[in-house]
Amino acid sequence: MLSQKYRGMLGKASVIMELSAFAGARAREIGAENVFDFSLGNPSVPVPQAYNACVSGLLNSEPCRAVHGYSQGLGNLEARTRIAASLNRRYGMNYEPDDLFMTAGAAGALAHALRLVTQPGDEVLTIAPYFPEYRPYVELAGCTLTVTPACPDNFQIDFDALERTMNPRVQAVLINTPNNPSGAVYSARTMERLAHFLGEKERQYGHELWLISDEPYREILFDDTPPVYPSRFYPRTLSCYSFSKSLSIPGDRIGYLAVNPACGESKTVTRMAAQISRGIGHDSAATLVQRAAAACCDMTADFSVYRRNRDLLLKELTALGFSIVRPEGTFYMFPRALEDDAAEFCRKAMAYDLILVPGDTFGVADHFRIAYCMETEKVARSLEAWRRFVRTEYAQG
Amino acid sequence: MLSQKYRGMLGKASVIMELSAFAGARAREIGAENVFDFSLGNPSVPVPQAYNACVSGLLNSEPCRAVHGYSQGLGNLEARTRIAASLNRRYGMNYEPDDLFMTAGAAGALAHALRLVTQPGDEVLTIAPYFPEYRPYVELAGCTLTVTPACPDNFQIDFDALERTMNPRVQAVLINTPNNPSGAVYSARTMERLAHFLGEKERQYGHELWLISDEPYREILFDDTPPVYPSRFYPRTLSCYSFSKSLSIPGDRIGYLAVNPACGESKTVTRMAAQISRGIGHDSAATLVQRAAAACCDMTADFSVYRRNRDLLLKELTALGFSIVRPEGTFYMFPRALEDDAAEFCRKAMAYDLILVPGDTFGVADHFRIAYCMETEKVARSLEAWRRFVRTEYAQG
Repeated sequence: MLSQKYRGMLGKASVIMELSAFAGARAREIGAENVFDFSLGNPSVPVPQAYNACVSGLLNSEPCRAVHGYSQGLGNLEARTRIAASLNRRYGMNYEPDDLFMTAGAAGALAHALRLVTQPGDEVLTIAPYFPEYRPYVELAGCTLTVTPACPDNFQIDFDALERTMNPRVQAVLINTPNNPSGAVYSARTMERLAHFLGEKERQYGHELWLISDEPYREILFDDTPPVYPSRFYPRTLSCYSFSKSLSIPGDRIGYLAVNPACGESKTVTRMAAQISRGIGHDSAATLVQRAAAACCDMTADFSVYRRNRDLLLKELTALGFSIVRPEGTFYMFPRALEDDAAEFCRKAMAYDLILVPGDTFGVADHFRIAYCMETEKVARSLEAWRRFVRTEYAQG
Repeated sequence: MLSQKYRGMLGKASVIMELSAFAGARAREIGAENVFDFSLGNPSVPVPQAYNACVSGLLNSEPCRAVHGYSQGLGNLEARTRIAASLNRRYGMNYEPDDLFMTAGAAGALAHALRLVTQPGDEVLTIAPYFPEYRPYVELAGCTLTVTPACPDNFQIDFDALERTMNPRVQAVLINTPNNPSGAVYSARTMERLAHFLGEKERQYGHELWLISDEPYREILFDDTPPVYPSRFYPRTLSCYSFSKSLSIPGDRIGYLAVNPACGESKTVTRMAAQISRGIGHDSAATLVQRAAAACCDMTADFSVYRRNRDLLLKELTALGFSIVRPEGTFYMFPRALEDDAAEFCRKAMAYDLILVPGDTFGVADHFRIAYCMETEKVARSLEAWRRFVRTEYAQG
């Protein structure tokens, strides 16, 4: 008999994917250039030439087995060695290659991380606004997602709210900085306070607490926002990374799980991750892709277009009366809607061919997300639609 | 707290991987050319030039998003279209692209297939000898693996034994033809009888039974063994395929799940597979690899070395007194050991630098597996070790 659990999920498809499908259909009607699809976080900047050159170079210069053969249980050793060295140099860590486990993107890393540090029935706590896929990730790992709100004025952690939500059933806290959907970047002060909070709760509850850090936007930082590496602050940290955004290669499905060796049993954790793969059919990313991504782990695509888009939208939307926390990274912003029901706000926007994602999906019902990973020229052309939308629908008396 | 389930699995590492590690250590001692490592089913023949050319061609000729962008939920549409057409032409099927779901190898396909057609606590039935990873695959999907023996004289299905083992808690039957470890290929007669058996049991039990067909060796057939495509025989068949062996690219992690449209709800099944991916962090294979493998789906690597190795070993080992079912495909054979305890037999063989896998791993304790995916020259050189081993350890009076 077909699984009732997964059949039951069919009715609840991702809101973002539905909006994206609507945008696609509308584009076929009136031309893609006339639909301002801010729904999908799909990187738009070109892949670095060096990455493609690296893939081709590996194919041309290495024996078949070295590029098309099975990887070791934790992933290709050369790839793990390069990435460990890069993280150690950039963030002052002490990773050894066996502290890393190569995965198919951050989704693969999170699937392993959640199963590593929970037993069925445990709670995993995250902070709203949060990436909506956290709910199926957590629930299909057999756990419950517990949500606490961030500070609305800057989307840093609200420690009073966290104190109220935290409870002994929580085994892991799942954070995402730079944050999808808000673009907020946790400060060193926020991370210090979080580490202190977790340490206190460990003592109070008498059990370990793990920090699962989802970091696909790690390198997309604007202005001089300092890179803050969560694992530096807390020993029991599982860093979940993806090269999807840094190298603009989401289709290559490549990332890793990095276990802070200060936790004291990082090699046990990565070996356990390999056991988890046996059950979920993950079995590592493509060897060729592991090697090419690792060879490029110190470079990124050119993110300047994301910064230009942020500046343009922030200025114009603020002038139109939106209240927006200034994004310090990613390619998202998360303004407050112009009415309390952001779903209704986003429905109205569709009539102006502005495709926006209502905030209830992210756990904050009166905000909405703009994904501005597109050509700046198109963002600029969207401004007229924004003006018409706001002036028509929300004109003051 | 670290997961007790996965920590508990660390003590029970794969026997095959342990033997392979021993072979590696021994190779460093006495030279790889002197260790006859028949333990690992790791394809050894070259990747077709056309495959590498296809990867490079895609990188050079297509826009970034078309090769490095996200795939659709079921996988790249062009890839699914090509593969459906190939299966329809080769096996007389009626697949549409949406009946296929692209996966990271057969392991990914099986992880989805098992979750698609079971509820936690169900039984999944397989036939010994069987691929040892079926046990973690099934158990970590929340089910129990039930095993019934094959006919010992030809490794076809023993329908009397199957009748005795079958019970109403079984929801899926998992087969593997061509078979790892025996090299047996199910005949059309076997498949007809199995389909009839499943149909009868569906009526008797009053619930659906699904056939999960694991087919990574589908194209490795010797002599004129006819290709028998299980899904042709039974409507509720989930075919799990990998390009690992057909194109000799195990590291590329690429395969698919093909749902027989005759089951009546194949599009529901593939959409459910996409939901399963959300939970297990699978999220599709690399787009580039999907497209390249699909473009090469009608070709294979040159398998003649596997046939030569089979012929050589079959002749010499038979002459040495082994009883062996003649393999009709794969790169394995599964002889009866020269003593009832095949584990002891394999331990003795290690003294002659013959690395063999005892059959208890595959559910048949008095047999052992030879993986002969290596250069024929090395197989030929191994024969002297075989002779010394057998004559020294098992000389008649």
